[in-house]
Amino acid sequence: MPVPLFNYSLLLLGLLPALAGAQPTDGAKPAPSNVRGAAYPRIYPDNRVAFRLKGLPGGSVQFQPLGGQPMAMNWNAQDSTWTLTTPPLTPGFHYYSLLINGLSVNDPNSETYFGANRQLSGIELPEPGVDDYDRLPVPHGDVREHWYFSRLTGQWRRAFVYTPPGYDANPKQRYPVLYLQHGAGEDERGWMKQGRANFILDNLIAAKKAVPLLVVMDCGYAATGEVSLVLNMTTLRQRMEEFEAVLVRELIPNIDAAYRTNPTRDFRAMAGLSMGGMQTLHTTLRHPELFSAIGAFSGAGLGGFDPQTDYNGVFRNPAGINKKINLLWLGAGTDEATFYRGAQLMHAKLDSIGVRNTLVISAGTSHEWLTWRRALHDFVPRLFHQPAREAGLRRPRH
Amino acid sequence: MPVPLFNYSLLLLGLLPALAGAQPTDGAKPAPSNVRGAAYPRIYPDNRVAFRLKGLPGGSVQFQPLGGQPMAMNWNAQDSTWTLTTPPLTPGFHYYSLLINGLSVNDPNSETYFGANRQLSGIELPEPGVDDYDRLPVPHGDVREHWYFSRLTGQWRRAFVYTPPGYDANPKQRYPVLYLQHGAGEDERGWMKQGRANFILDNLIAAKKAVPLLVVMDCGYAATGEVSLVLNMTTLRQRMEEFEAVLVRELIPNIDAAYRTNPTRDFRAMAGLSMGGMQTLHTTLRHPELFSAIGAFSGAGLGGFDPQTDYNGVFRNPAGINKKINLLWLGAGTDEATFYRGAQLMHAKLDSIGVRNTLVISAGTSHEWLTWRRALHDFVPRLFHQPAREAGLRRPRH
Repeated sequence: MPVPLFNYSLLLLGLLPALAGAQPTDGAKPAPSNVRGAAYPRIYPDNRVAFRLKGLPGGSVQFQPLGGQPMAMNWNAQDSTWTLTTPPLTPGFHYYSLLINGLSVNDPNSETYFGANRQLSGIELPEPGVDDYDRLPVPHGDVREHWYFSRLTGQWRRAFVYTPPGYDANPKQRYPVLYLQHGAGEDERGWMKQGRANFILDNLIAAKKAVPLLVVMDCGYAATGEVSLVLNMTTLRQRMEEFEAVLVRELIPNIDAAYRTNPTRDFRAMAGLSMGGMQTLHTTLRHPELFSAIGAFSGAGLGGFDPQTDYNGVFRNPAGINKKINLLWLGAGTDEATFYRGAQLMHAKLDSIGVRNTLVISAGTSHEWLTWRRALHDFVPRLFHQPAREAGLRRPRH
Repeated sequence: MPVPLFNYSLLLLGLLPALAGAQPTDGAKPAPSNVRGAAYPRIYPDNRVAFRLKGLPGGSVQFQPLGGQPMAMNWNAQDSTWTLTTPPLTPGFHYYSLLINGLSVNDPNSETYFGANRQLSGIELPEPGVDDYDRLPVPHGDVREHWYFSRLTGQWRRAFVYTPPGYDANPKQRYPVLYLQHGAGEDERGWMKQGRANFILDNLIAAKKAVPLLVVMDCGYAATGEVSLVLNMTTLRQRMEEFEAVLVRELIPNIDAAYRTNPTRDFRAMAGLSMGGMQTLHTTLRHPELFSAIGAFSGAGLGGFDPQTDYNGVFRNPAGINKKINLLWLGAGTDEATFYRGAQLMHAKLDSIGVRNTLVISAGTSHEWLTWRRALHDFVPRLFHQPAREAGLRRPRH
């Protein structure tokens, strides 16, 4: 006989976040990444952030920015809260958690975001004077949760598909497609939720800086059975080949059948961040028959770059690559040393052998979503120029 | 100068959930609600569940089913984990959290689900012999994230819109619409993520038990400015009137413009769970010019029911209601006493005054999502029979 552990009553209607509390009048505002009704975390005009956790006397509580150093929170017996006001933080989106006696848990005040293979807290800090990634009063495309069956993995897989404003109203128009991949530890939700890809696209399309296009975001993991999520160069290659097979043999045909795409290489691009950038280079350079534009966001040159041997030696023929690939975009943030050096290395070597490519650097950002929002915002307007003009579509203005 | 707290390296690629661990060979399987790679929580064939949390020596850790009694977890020094195997749990979806020294936090092994005004852990337990709510090998509709601007609240609002299989391929077909609301403390994500509404619809449509229809899921909160989330009968009425205004004056016109709906009352229904059920009765009975079918899932008769005075006295004219409303569906689970009594009370009084209505009881379930999955699965096949036949659409077979 199952035990009915889960008993509810009308009291449930009154359940509140544990930590809301009254809002002080100090110029700070609740972060846009807070859950409904939560007064903390609060952001000051100079991007200092006040965190607050109610309860749990004893032990220790720290604020843990993902990949950074923990900062101690202070116990206030008067209102039974742990508090911390940080120094000014860099704008954009940051994963974080709270450490309770060293154990990483979420902040109940914040939305959760899938990263590092779990649901983490996140905080969104405004970038003064920049609204490229905001939900502005422009026409908005839909983002569709789309399920398809993968015979290769034996699983139903979920992809998100951005359809631009006007997609439904113009049932005879066909659209170019960008396949856009998240990073390691993340999933198909990352580009929408952390990356705000749909708002970036809405804004670019409204400003006529980009042609209307579809964006397809799938999960970059396509292993069958149980495999280690720890990545080294061997397992990374396995993961890349697994996803390449699903993308090329299953996802692209499914999308071309389910949506009004322009199903030719001239109208198909791929980009990704970090692991997704490596997957993009791996897949597109093995399948130039499918892709004409490539974006490696913080994902180029990470294992070095040898034009003679890497990517099956396709770079031994620079003229061939230049003819086939309309855009080879490399980028990274100045504060993510490994990825910054990798992008510069690949860029310099490509330049030296005469392969046309574009290097775009994000000033003052690390291995984080602001780097990739900026990358997407720079990358998309460069897409589908020539084919778009030939097809009579509007050419972006710059 | 902003402080770059968030420094990453290639090490990030190897980040793993803290608690995965090796999988025992005991017949138990990782819950489908686990994050990628997490071996716990594990479900035994008899629906006992093993929870595990790694780390945090000292203090106390408890498993906290939402609305239920906490259960102590045990510290195992050998592998530094807190463990608990529960008695068999009722099938379906349950919110839970872990209490660390009494503070409620998420289980890092589980997906998060928005309920009780925060992101909570959740566990999905299979129901033997029932696949009505599963992702089956049938055609799947898309679920669209759709943004619209609300002048009444001054905010952009997000609704999710289920479009059935064939919606894109039949650009001249128009569809009936069900507006479907979550409960208090939840939001527009609830019916998809916790409720599996899209799979319920896919399965019903594939089995020809329901006509293809759109389902629109908005957030039931539409207050402007900061308001208390604590609900009593006064604030609940305010919340209901705020959402009624947005739904009637903004959402319905927006959906009718953006999607190929059949924009008449015969082809428009509303249903909701708990607070959403109260909102449904409140809104539909004030707007019979807009709705012809009503579903109150665990949301009827909660403040008693007086046919003479409640709902502006519309039940004083039973013949009028019977003529206008094709379906008035009431339901609750046997184990949610207040809601069960409320539904039975309203049903009995409606019967006594000759108002045609349907009462459907869910055996052995409480104020929880299995009650509402069953409600939706029963409710939808009853919708749009007469209008559907008149319009030449396929009539459901029973």
